[in-house]
Amino acid sequence: MSATGTVYLVGAGPGAPDLLTLRAARLLERADIVFYDALVHPETLALAERAEKIAVGKRCGRHSTAQRFINKRLVDAARKHALVVRLKGGDPLLFGRAQEEIDELDAAGIRFEIVPGITAALAASAAVGRSMTRRGLSRNVAFVTPRTGAGEEGHDWAQTVLAADTCAIYMGVGEAAGIASTLLARGASPDRPVVIVENASLPDERRLPSRLADLALAAASGIAGPAIILIGEVYARISPVPAAAVAERTRAA
Amino acid sequence: MSATGTVYLVGAGPGAPDLLTLRAARLLERADIVFYDALVHPETLALAERAEKIAVGKRCGRHSTAQRFINKRLVDAARKHALVVRLKGGDPLLFGRAQEEIDELDAAGIRFEIVPGITAALAASAAVGRSMTRRGLSRNVAFVTPRTGAGEEGHDWAQTVLAADTCAIYMGVGEAAGIASTLLARGASPDRPVVIVENASLPDERRLPSRLADLALAAASGIAGPAIILIGEVYARISPVPAAAVAERTRAA
Repeated sequence: MSATGTVYLVGAGPGAPDLLTLRAARLLERADIVFYDALVHPETLALAERAEKIAVGKRCGRHSTAQRFINKRLVDAARKHALVVRLKGGDPLLFGRAQEEIDELDAAGIRFEIVPGITAALAASAAVGRSMTRRGLSRNVAFVTPRTGAGEEGHDWAQTVLAADTCAIYMGVGEAAGIASTLLARGASPDRPVVIVENASLPDERRLPSRLADLALAAASGIAGPAIILIGEVYARISPVPAAAVAERTRAA
Repeated sequence: MSATGTVYLVGAGPGAPDLLTLRAARLLERADIVFYDALVHPETLALAERAEKIAVGKRCGRHSTAQRFINKRLVDAARKHALVVRLKGGDPLLFGRAQEEIDELDAAGIRFEIVPGITAALAASAAVGRSMTRRGLSRNVAFVTPRTGAGEEGHDWAQTVLAADTCAIYMGVGEAAGIASTLLARGASPDRPVVIVENASLPDERRLPSRLADLALAAASGIAGPAIILIGEVYARISPVPAAAVAERTRAA
């Protein structure tokens, strides 16, 4: 029998606490210790009633715990506790640096399991009421980030965007002007529909529909929360105001 | 006030009933009527205790309800019931033909909401313990199907696969030989790692690691359940036997 615990790499979903999976909720309830990211909802964290809770949150441009230190702490925790949860925003396997944690656990001989979560792009597309695939219009979808790290200078994110019918760009709002100019220079249509969704699934969710030529302008309208840029013909003719809000106003009038 | 109910397009997740979201579970518990797909787990469906349950399942190659008939039934149901759930395998917005249902509801003036679910590719990648993105190796991910419908003959799925670092192919196992030969002819390396994951997240989950040149052979080993083909360097050196199974055997010995 192993002398160590198990580490669960758990997706917390896009933001709304009820978009957590049942499995994730049960693991949090039983967890001995939880390491969580900056964007995890307080209600989600509150499920871990008996656990020690440790913030290791990374958010772009802010103070954060170094990844190597997180990796090491997970290994140490599994040597002391039976049930360790590493709680990440969205899905752990998309833009979450999970492999670095997995490799460290693997090398230390520690059992781990991955519990998928709802990734932000799907919540963003749900927010605007559009399917990412659509017969005759979109048969494939790409999830891309324009951010590059050390050794990734040759990474051609634009090629991936251009080759996909529908695309979701993660961690791209801060570089929206560069994204638009690069895609336009590579032959994308200025009229290609885009929509920025900020705080998808949360009460302060906001949608900014636009077109590729005006993406930088849309991105400049004070976006402070996490945001996804959706690109593709499936996002044509989206109203800036959600249908529910229109219904509310109609009732109030 | 509207005289009609609300239709919730709900993702049932990849298969395991506890990979449903909390929101989906609560909606099923309150639902008046549920229209469900073939691959929805019986335990998930059982949550809808008080609902009338109607199978409209589509599964490739089997008898299924025509999409137009489903669209119409959703509209009719919303005129009779307060809470209608349309339960789809995986996420409703990826390869689920949701837009046809959304458009019909929209045209009829019926309120709808989309509740995201865990898509099969993320459960498949979790099953083999690999992150789809990885610093220095994969900065983007594509979800693709080689299947085409009427009017989609020009759809170049291979271009999307080739432009992505990591790729998940949906509904592709039956065409694995054609997928491999097309990608090889277009310049993909024969050694590019691939892994087929059958019944991801279910007790009979199976993983078949291989390389692109041997994909057809791997796909020919009696795959009966829903399966995802994962392609990319992040899937190198995957053991055919899960680590947990190895641990079990070591204990038994």
